Amino acid sequence: MEAKLRARHPDFDPTFRDQLRALLAWRRDVRRFKRDALAPGTIERLIGIACLSPSVGLSEPWRFVIVEDQARRAAIRDCFEACNQDALHQQSDRASLYARLKLSGLDDAPCQIAVFADRATAQGHGLGRLTMPATLDYSVAIAIHTLWLAARAEGIGVGWVSILDPARVAEILDVPQDWTFIGHLCIGCPEEEADLPALQRQGWERRHPSAGVVIYR
Amino acid sequence: MEAKLRARHPDFDPTFRDQLRALLAWRRDVRRFKRDALAPGTIERLIGIACLSPSVGLSEPWRFVIVEDQARRAAIRDCFEACNQDALHQQSDRASLYARLKLSGLDDAPCQIAVFADRATAQGHGLGRLTMPATLDYSVAIAIHTLWLAARAEGIGVGWVSILDPARVAEILDVPQDWTFIGHLCIGCPEEEADLPALQRQGWERRHPSAGVVIYR
Repeated sequence: MEAKLRARHPDFDPTFRDQLRALLAWRRDVRRFKRDALAPGTIERLIGIACLSPSVGLSEPWRFVIVEDQARRAAIRDCFEACNQDALHQQSDRASLYARLKLSGLDDAPCQIAVFADRATAQGHGLGRLTMPATLDYSVAIAIHTLWLAARAEGIGVGWVSILDPARVAEILDVPQDWTFIGHLCIGCPEEEADLPALQRQGWERRHPSAGVVIYR
Repeated sequence: MEAKLRARHPDFDPTFRDQLRALLAWRRDVRRFKRDALAPGTIERLIGIACLSPSVGLSEPWRFVIVEDQARRAAIRDCFEACNQDALHQQSDRASLYARLKLSGLDDAPCQIAVFADRATAQGHGLGRLTMPATLDYSVAIAIHTLWLAARAEGIGVGWVSILDPARVAEILDVPQDWTFIGHLCIGCPEEEADLPALQRQGWERRHPSAGVVIYR
């Protein structure tokens, strides 16, 4: 069995590794979308790829809520606006710069998904999460990242909106009580491509060298 | 500026997308490692790639602790053993199957990193995390996933150990108080390759169809 598995496992060459690095470098948190609809079935296919992600104890705790109803979308947009106003008021010397940032694509993105972690799932039989229950949430964050990369490889942009009240989003979307809100995704064709984060291009923050985040023990 | 950016942005073709899907399918949570050392600089290079990950407000909250000291490694192994015994005792009808699972590569993996989220970082100026501070932790989980994929593309395996007491790990590694433990990674050349999760091959749990985790609202 092992020999058979080994015989067919893929080898990844330097060309693929360079392209993977380019994918990581050009994956952006997109806030400016074209309004064109995605081809039918696109989002379900991307979710299928996301489900290849690792999950603690093979619990697969990700739950994807595809938000189509206009009233629910409007309610999420209102929630974002309220939370964003609160956040603006927390910014003192940077308030004017903050106010100029575009922090969501909720108006234009043709597709929106809210992603939750099912904290009550029996799948996985609790393995790996007794001391660290938040690993369920991490598994879902990683699935979002997988979806994000798969989308970008097809020229589709994803923007992660976190300026939301998790309890209110759960209420708007009428999801089971044990589902923890992880993130709301705007998905569609991006208005532009870039290899630098929008927040860096807009002067909010910059990337730092990776050597600064490594210590040895 | 925009035209210039567009002119040089990479296009990903169907061949790359197929390889990316293969990478996602063959990325495993590795628990059986060869003891061969990684080439010097490998882990720092992989961490550099991980730092291309998205982070809330461009906060880059990831902190990588490369654990080399044998006494600290032994203490982490002890912590795992204690937590794993507790977990075994929580399993009633599945205890004998649980006891047979190999849940970490701590004995053999040549490289070990503990990964933390700096919850006190000023970087990003708080953007995006006022209502959802755990997005800092999610950013770090995603960076681990990026490292994992980049490693697998080089034939290097990663195993994520979560059966640990976070407070004890922080103590063993003597890290700043504001750092939240996210995961401990074993890294090295895998003993085997597979496209099915080890927990599925060992009869613990199986993957479920992605259609079951999608709802429409």
